[in-house]
Amino acid sequence: PCSPRQRSLVGTFAVDRVGPWRYTFAGWIDGFATWFHGLTKKMAADQDVTMDLLIGADLVEQAAHTAADRDVLWYWVHRLRSAAVGVAADVLASDLPTMMARSPDRRLTSLCPQIWPVWVDRAKARYSTWYELFPRSCGEPGHHGTFADCAKQLPYLANLGFDVLYLPPIHPIGTTFRKGKNNTLTAAPEDVGVPWGIGSAEGGHKAIHPQLGTLADFRALQAKAATSGIEIALDVAFQCSPDHPYVQSHPQWFRHRPDGTIQYAENPPKKYQDIYPIDFETDDWENLWAELLSVMEYWVQQGVKIFRVDNPHTKAFPFWEWAIAEIHRRDREVLFLSEAFTRPKLMYRLAKLGFTQSYTYFTWRNTKWELENYFTELTQSPVREFFRPNLWPNTPDILPEALQKGGEPAFKLRVALAATLGASYGIYGPAYELCENRPIAEGKEEYGHSEKYEIKAWDWQSPHSIARWIAALNRIRREHPALHRNESLRFHAIDNEQLLAYTKQTDDLGDVILVVANLDPFANQAGWLDLPLESLGVDPYRPYQVHDLLAHTHYDWYGGRNYVELNPHHQPVHVFHVVSSPGHG
Amino acid sequence: PCSPRQRSLVGTFAVDRVGPWRYTFAGWIDGFATWFHGLTKKMAADQDVTMDLLIGADLVEQAAHTAADRDVLWYWVHRLRSAAVGVAADVLASDLPTMMARSPDRRLTSLCPQIWPVWVDRAKARYSTWYELFPRSCGEPGHHGTFADCAKQLPYLANLGFDVLYLPPIHPIGTTFRKGKNNTLTAAPEDVGVPWGIGSAEGGHKAIHPQLGTLADFRALQAKAATSGIEIALDVAFQCSPDHPYVQSHPQWFRHRPDGTIQYAENPPKKYQDIYPIDFETDDWENLWAELLSVMEYWVQQGVKIFRVDNPHTKAFPFWEWAIAEIHRRDREVLFLSEAFTRPKLMYRLAKLGFTQSYTYFTWRNTKWELENYFTELTQSPVREFFRPNLWPNTPDILPEALQKGGEPAFKLRVALAATLGASYGIYGPAYELCENRPIAEGKEEYGHSEKYEIKAWDWQSPHSIARWIAALNRIRREHPALHRNESLRFHAIDNEQLLAYTKQTDDLGDVILVVANLDPFANQAGWLDLPLESLGVDPYRPYQVHDLLAHTHYDWYGGRNYVELNPHHQPVHVFHVVSSPGHG
Repeated sequence: PCSPRQRSLVGTFAVDRVGPWRYTFAGWIDGFATWFHGLTKKMAADQDVTMDLLIGADLVEQAAHTAADRDVLWYWVHRLRSAAVGVAADVLASDLPTMMARSPDRRLTSLCPQIWPVWVDRAKARYSTWYELFPRSCGEPGHHGTFADCAKQLPYLANLGFDVLYLPPIHPIGTTFRKGKNNTLTAAPEDVGVPWGIGSAEGGHKAIHPQLGTLADFRALQAKAATSGIEIALDVAFQCSPDHPYVQSHPQWFRHRPDGTIQYAENPPKKYQDIYPIDFETDDWENLWAELLSVMEYWVQQGVKIFRVDNPHTKAFPFWEWAIAEIHRRDREVLFLSEAFTRPKLMYRLAKLGFTQSYTYFTWRNTKWELENYFTELTQSPVREFFRPNLWPNTPDILPEALQKGGEPAFKLRVALAATLGASYGIYGPAYELCENRPIAEGKEEYGHSEKYEIKAWDWQSPHSIARWIAALNRIRREHPALHRNESLRFHAIDNEQLLAYTKQTDDLGDVILVVANLDPFANQAGWLDLPLESLGVDPYRPYQVHDLLAHTHYDWYGGRNYVELNPHHQPVHVFHVVSSPGHG
Repeated sequence: PCSPRQRSLVGTFAVDRVGPWRYTFAGWIDGFATWFHGLTKKMAADQDVTMDLLIGADLVEQAAHTAADRDVLWYWVHRLRSAAVGVAADVLASDLPTMMARSPDRRLTSLCPQIWPVWVDRAKARYSTWYELFPRSCGEPGHHGTFADCAKQLPYLANLGFDVLYLPPIHPIGTTFRKGKNNTLTAAPEDVGVPWGIGSAEGGHKAIHPQLGTLADFRALQAKAATSGIEIALDVAFQCSPDHPYVQSHPQWFRHRPDGTIQYAENPPKKYQDIYPIDFETDDWENLWAELLSVMEYWVQQGVKIFRVDNPHTKAFPFWEWAIAEIHRRDREVLFLSEAFTRPKLMYRLAKLGFTQSYTYFTWRNTKWELENYFTELTQSPVREFFRPNLWPNTPDILPEALQKGGEPAFKLRVALAATLGASYGIYGPAYELCENRPIAEGKEEYGHSEKYEIKAWDWQSPHSIARWIAALNRIRREHPALHRNESLRFHAIDNEQLLAYTKQTDDLGDVILVVANLDPFANQAGWLDLPLESLGVDPYRPYQVHDLLAHTHYDWYGGRNYVELNPHHQPVHVFHVVSSPGHG
């Protein structure tokens, strides 16, 4: 028996176009490397290597018949055959191993019988910064906002550094069983309804809510956004209001109750009489699938390249697999964000079926233990190979308790964690930057006076806005490629349960970011941080600097162990650029 | 979005015969369970459920057409349709869910397109206790031992509690380049040679070394062993001495050097001139494979059902996959132990190709950190699904440093760890129970005066033998089914780096074993142990007992935190039977 040893064989290939790729594995025995290794050992042990030189000559001759370096190889064949004094030493000092590695003897190659597909997305799949906005709240006070009003906020969003503007459904909203303010059962005449209650006499999923504007207005918004480097993402919510044209034209796509009425959505004891779910078990599923696909195709034709998909886990999984592949056959640039807040297995399955990104549990992960465990799973386990997290500290549906209770420090903390833990993250604004923290009721995680049910008049320029904090975070993201990926994320020891410390870095260590966050929004917290300097490319025996990119100060550190203190009311998070040697970076 | 929740769906099936099985997965939506869940919620919220009862009637009627319980189901169909007062409450209190679960609506079943094979072995694959013995050392002093001499030791082995007796190769041993005592290059005329140097004029892998006896003698040994519940395992070492008949009859099965001689085994700078490796890259591989398979078939015909395979990782992997399948086509009872001390990937690959058990790194894992990490990997990661570890504290090739330095306490410790961490383990004896600890040289992990090169005269009845310790461990193993599997292994917190604590238990918690080991063979060690009592089936609010199965004493404990102290010179390991309530067990 030989003693155990560990070695990883890793292969890489560069992908130079977006779309489908396939790969497999091949293995062969490197007879020359084995021989060279043995020769080295024998020379070191002063053994006779005459026979080895002859064996080596045969190996090199085999390659010399076809290799690009054939002239040099033939030279070595003759020298090895000569078995002259000094040949072995010359071989050991030569670049023969490099040349031979270029001409491997692959006659006995083992080819893996399986071929793996991999889909290559454009870079925004990996690194994106989202802002969710209700255009109807962008108008003058007392007026229903339009796409044109929304366009006026584009400079604000660009200034904050967002590159995806995601709009809740822009389609006509039903009136039957329309919900009133604060999710009440009866709507007043002036109530605007929930954008997810899609469809009215004015049209369904391919139509635009008349109060928002026309298709031309939408395209103008897209064009203007593009000039600011912002893409518009649309919501794909495959459900219908009772007034949706499908209800009349395709009643077979809905489930009927024994009394002949259509079954509305339920999550007992909750009832959603304003929403009819689509019955994916319908016998007419082929026509249904074709129609739903045509909805997405229609918007792709209008220039939409990003979809946020509402509750995909409540629809048939084979539909998504087929529909995403069909869209990708027509346009490889299209990205899909899965809003599946459900069990991990299902979230991961949707990623494997083709969804580009997914919402995550970040929204409810607050303690050091929770954050370290969850993000270690997402970035270090096999999950990282197929699942791209998109981190949201809030959504129109979710005002987490941590934000309700923690005030401005909590809002600053949670967005800073999202922006640095996740290469992709998003906020629902302006509720976020205005630190809107009033729930509908104590103990509930829903917004009071939710924008889902009414038009809001936001004080965009409020002096209490944390827009500048967010703008700074997004600027840091843009300038630091270490934050454009998640694989390098590593948590580090810090002797305070309220302090979280982690780094991200580029493969070449050219950019190293260290984040230290105070998870306690109420009190000062301090602790000693332990950094594995060598893995960060820092010489542990020389001084180095950490530049606080938010406070524009820097600290001179020496060695792996350093003191950190954070006052949440002043600055709940340090985002440090680690600079190996003063003068760099 | 719904809030995240975790649920595992687990399916099981019983296997009632040894051999090949295939399985797949099917999934369907349980419409009735969904309905029942909704009804429960709506009743709790005092909602009108008239429509729900009609929907439920349709679901039950669907099942009533075919179900075994059809009479009862029809009764419920009529009651549900009646929508009478109290029906809903009666349904909730009924066993309708159980009946409906027996008749699932599988019209929309999703069947996984893949079918997985699984090989089911006899129980000894999972739970086995091995003893490696050189029969030639079983004779009278000054005489070469025979199978008949070996048979005389069977009562001793049975008394120690071993159920597999593994013999090093029993074939004729070559004389050309035979190694002398202590692995010297030149053998004296009386030197007996290495059993792994297989083949001489007297025959090859199907022959028996004449000094051991005849085929009839071997079969007599097997028969006598069987009466003691002991199976004989043979060594499969596919390599040849220069005197092996294959060298003349099939020179094409060996690699030739440029001077026409056959290439002997090398691990530069080490040379093994007495061993010719077989060239699995030979063009004549089909005849080679057939011949090697015929060797194993021959011994299976002689009643051998267990093979220990020497260095399988240095032979072609497709050969093993094919050969093991071929043997299993003829006899499903045959087990294969892989002696592959190599990289984990290769060890695991051999397990997937068909090897029943494998040697492990246990031999070199000594510290708490090493043992906890390694056995957590083997028993809690996916490795446990395909890899069955067999733990050896020593082998004729390996006298680990821990045994050289630690004296009798180390020998007692390491065999107790092997016997309780591994459902299968083995020792090379009598070197083990006699605590033979002299290496060939300081810093080497090989035996001095190794039995590989000479006949040993063992003092089987030495007063210093730890045979009784081993017999007690093996008796505990037999009596405690918790030790017959590895999946339940869990390590527990104990506040001393020299103390290791772990439990194993049966699924029904009917048998719970707690081991606390002092890893320090020199000094007393004590600490406080923390046990998760509920997961062991122990009521944390009642006293319980731990019975020391080695010392035949017991302790009354209360709560999860208890004090343990171990003097290595007296008893380095506690093996406790955890008894929930005094009077049991």
